[in-house]
Amino acid sequence: MESNLPHWLQKQAELNPHEKAIETDDGSSLSFLELHERSKQYAAYFEENGIQRGDHVAVLSSNRLEMVLAIHALSYLGAVVVLLNTRLTPEELAFQIKDAEVSCLITEENFYSKGEAAIRNAGLAACPIVQYHLIQTNRSSPDAIRKEITLDEVFTIIYTSGTTGSPKGVQLTYGNHWASAISSALNLGLSQSDKWLICLPMFHVGGFSALIKNVVYGMPVFLMERFDEHMVNHAIKNSGVTIVSVVSIMLQRLIENLRDERLPAHFRCMLLGGGPAPKPLLENAKDKAIPVFQTYGMTETASQIVTLSPKDALRKLGSAGRALSTAWLVIDAPRGEIGEIKVKGPMVTKGYYKRDESTTEALSDGWLATGDLGYQDEEGFLYVVDRRKDLIISGGENIYPAEIESVLSGMKGIMEAGVTGIEDQRWGQVPAAFVVTQKESVLNETDVLRYCRDHLAGYKCPKEIHFVEKLPRNASNKLLRRELPAFRKDVGN
Amino acid sequence: MESNLPHWLQKQAELNPHEKAIETDDGSSLSFLELHERSKQYAAYFEENGIQRGDHVAVLSSNRLEMVLAIHALSYLGAVVVLLNTRLTPEELAFQIKDAEVSCLITEENFYSKGEAAIRNAGLAACPIVQYHLIQTNRSSPDAIRKEITLDEVFTIIYTSGTTGSPKGVQLTYGNHWASAISSALNLGLSQSDKWLICLPMFHVGGFSALIKNVVYGMPVFLMERFDEHMVNHAIKNSGVTIVSVVSIMLQRLIENLRDERLPAHFRCMLLGGGPAPKPLLENAKDKAIPVFQTYGMTETASQIVTLSPKDALRKLGSAGRALSTAWLVIDAPRGEIGEIKVKGPMVTKGYYKRDESTTEALSDGWLATGDLGYQDEEGFLYVVDRRKDLIISGGENIYPAEIESVLSGMKGIMEAGVTGIEDQRWGQVPAAFVVTQKESVLNETDVLRYCRDHLAGYKCPKEIHFVEKLPRNASNKLLRRELPAFRKDVGN
Repeated sequence: MESNLPHWLQKQAELNPHEKAIETDDGSSLSFLELHERSKQYAAYFEENGIQRGDHVAVLSSNRLEMVLAIHALSYLGAVVVLLNTRLTPEELAFQIKDAEVSCLITEENFYSKGEAAIRNAGLAACPIVQYHLIQTNRSSPDAIRKEITLDEVFTIIYTSGTTGSPKGVQLTYGNHWASAISSALNLGLSQSDKWLICLPMFHVGGFSALIKNVVYGMPVFLMERFDEHMVNHAIKNSGVTIVSVVSIMLQRLIENLRDERLPAHFRCMLLGGGPAPKPLLENAKDKAIPVFQTYGMTETASQIVTLSPKDALRKLGSAGRALSTAWLVIDAPRGEIGEIKVKGPMVTKGYYKRDESTTEALSDGWLATGDLGYQDEEGFLYVVDRRKDLIISGGENIYPAEIESVLSGMKGIMEAGVTGIEDQRWGQVPAAFVVTQKESVLNETDVLRYCRDHLAGYKCPKEIHFVEKLPRNASNKLLRRELPAFRKDVGN
Repeated sequence: MESNLPHWLQKQAELNPHEKAIETDDGSSLSFLELHERSKQYAAYFEENGIQRGDHVAVLSSNRLEMVLAIHALSYLGAVVVLLNTRLTPEELAFQIKDAEVSCLITEENFYSKGEAAIRNAGLAACPIVQYHLIQTNRSSPDAIRKEITLDEVFTIIYTSGTTGSPKGVQLTYGNHWASAISSALNLGLSQSDKWLICLPMFHVGGFSALIKNVVYGMPVFLMERFDEHMVNHAIKNSGVTIVSVVSIMLQRLIENLRDERLPAHFRCMLLGGGPAPKPLLENAKDKAIPVFQTYGMTETASQIVTLSPKDALRKLGSAGRALSTAWLVIDAPRGEIGEIKVKGPMVTKGYYKRDESTTEALSDGWLATGDLGYQDEEGFLYVVDRRKDLIISGGENIYPAEIESVLSGMKGIMEAGVTGIEDQRWGQVPAAFVVTQKESVLNETDVLRYCRDHLAGYKCPKEIHFVEKLPRNASNKLLRRELPAFRKDVGN
């Protein structure tokens, strides 16, 4: 098969020049032709500033239109985009900038000083920093513009936070991103009236992947600088948004914000990723008739690789579904038993940047060992149980934090919960729970423990209950269980 | 990018086991699981009869369910499917069977004697013939079943009739067929309620491609053994058919059959291929509010590669549209002028079987020289003018038969028309027209010539008008202009 394709943005600018490509929450919008023209201007400026094909260029940005332009501009130059998480400290950023051998940093005014500190910290004083508001757009096109996309070429490097060890740069090719977009369309369908809302950060693969769908499908996206439940619900109701990608905590806030209202009939998909969803949340969504498509995926799979299709959503509540039509899924254990989840398909990374050992460990014959634990039911539906590294082994029994969190989240008065293992002289490890209660709640430790004993086997009941203001989450709102023990000190442990 | 995918039929049997896969015009149907199971039984029987991976197996069949099972069965064994046109003579079939190095022929009872004669004619007495009704289905699966699809592997060989010379076997890989299905979905969209009707023969790529969409999309198809305008309209109205692929003559018969009726609102696409469509036909379709998507493609491109999208259908009447989002199109001439059409993309063949010279001639750096003439307007829309080989050069002027045919088709009383060049002592070549009139028509040569002079430049006016019963067409209803001169004898020339 021919391994090149026409450049996706240039193609949309030809096929759908005057169709809306991007809307932003300040009410402005760009057509595909405008998006193409402005990205070319950015590319011309970047080229003048020395960015060449194959260069690694870091982008430190919130979900702004300029970020979209910068990404397409880098693609037109054939540069590799290193996506940086804006919530990281300069030290953390410095590690990634150095590790990814970045030769230029593109950022917005708000993050200039953070970016500058990171560059200094990385010992790369000569590395130029480009700020959006200083970009000159007097040239309409770079001299060397890429008119093709080479599927085997690396397009992005995104660092995985990981639960232990130092972050690793996941390389995703154009082909990975393309296959991800195509596979999603085969799963969700594709309608002329679709509009996808991006409220997940685009420096994570969840937000970034919607940007690729934008240009692969020729579908408009509604770009939101940050998640806000009121604004998202408003956009669904008033701007024709048909699909939104969210993580659990966002969905919960959307549902709360809806109160007694329903979403309009044109809304067809709430794509839920970012880790196992608590059952009570799924049931709430079901009560509100919100079409939730649970997904399972990670940076290494360029977003979703397993999805629960609409017709099974109610029948298989709690499952992440089955592998997309282009992908494979196996559990490293007999059918029905819990084991490590392994996946394969054209959206799976070819490896970590400069981490041959980690790559060899994670990838074997195209199969990615995800580090997640799960099982498949008799029909092949996947149930993600937990991160392998978060597994609590207590007196020889396996305890899955997510299971306990799901139970706690279902208790009246509890907003959210995190569970991790703590050392215990007798059992080796025991679970400790960290809960955020609703404002008006008067729950105490005894109440929570009693509830646990009613709903969980004895060995799974947390040995400690800590009431905390909020849970540690990363920039994509994923719970950071490894940081939970630090919260024990807050309550005097 | 990973170049393997899960086998498409097996995957649909997992994802949509109980969804309808195939309906036939006798009212029966198969689910994806049943289609998978029955194809595996066929594969087991074929395996027992010696068919192995890499074998070239010919299929001589009308659009029967058994043909679908045989094709998937051969795919499960990794055999290459050589699709034979049932309208060919035993001599013509013998050429293809021999040329493609076929080791087994699969056919139906009706075509057994023709197939047997072809095998004998090819001097392949030892080549086994499998008839559908004799297939044993006692084994549920072959020993060596392919669970993956290798995109680079050849799946089908289909002979192009060509306008001159001996037929050439076009090799299409799994990747070609996959890219074609994906590209069509990106263009037409993909809805849960889609159902595609196949009335084009599946031994041609136009019919075959819908069979691939069936398993790539997990979409039901309605299979018709032969085209019948009444039955097609009936299926659209009563069986939820949303898309039909047709050639011009079929569309004309569908419109005539509709009389004063309209197609229901759920019908969303009449995909029109098989050569330039006469303008009067497109205008009739427009009057009836039939959503016609004109396409341009050929066996070498695994069906459509250029399509006119709905929003441009009226604005660009007569255009074949623009290259699909995964494909490129150029005209070998300055913009606006007529030249040879060249195309490129992941659906384009890697070449003709055992015809290195023809392959080199047609393919250069991935670009396929189509042998068709056309031009692009200022917005890049393609207008196919004619086959390069059908071009009439008269006194140094280029004359395109399709243009004259289009004018003639627009004349009241004329059903259809074919035009070709005949030798002329003075001009080198001059156009001769062959027209089929409506039953009640009283048109004579003088009427037609006067009409031509009113609508065409003098040098384009046919020098002969022949009234014929019907035009020579191939099995996919394409006009065979090279056979037109034979009809001159009928009227005493």
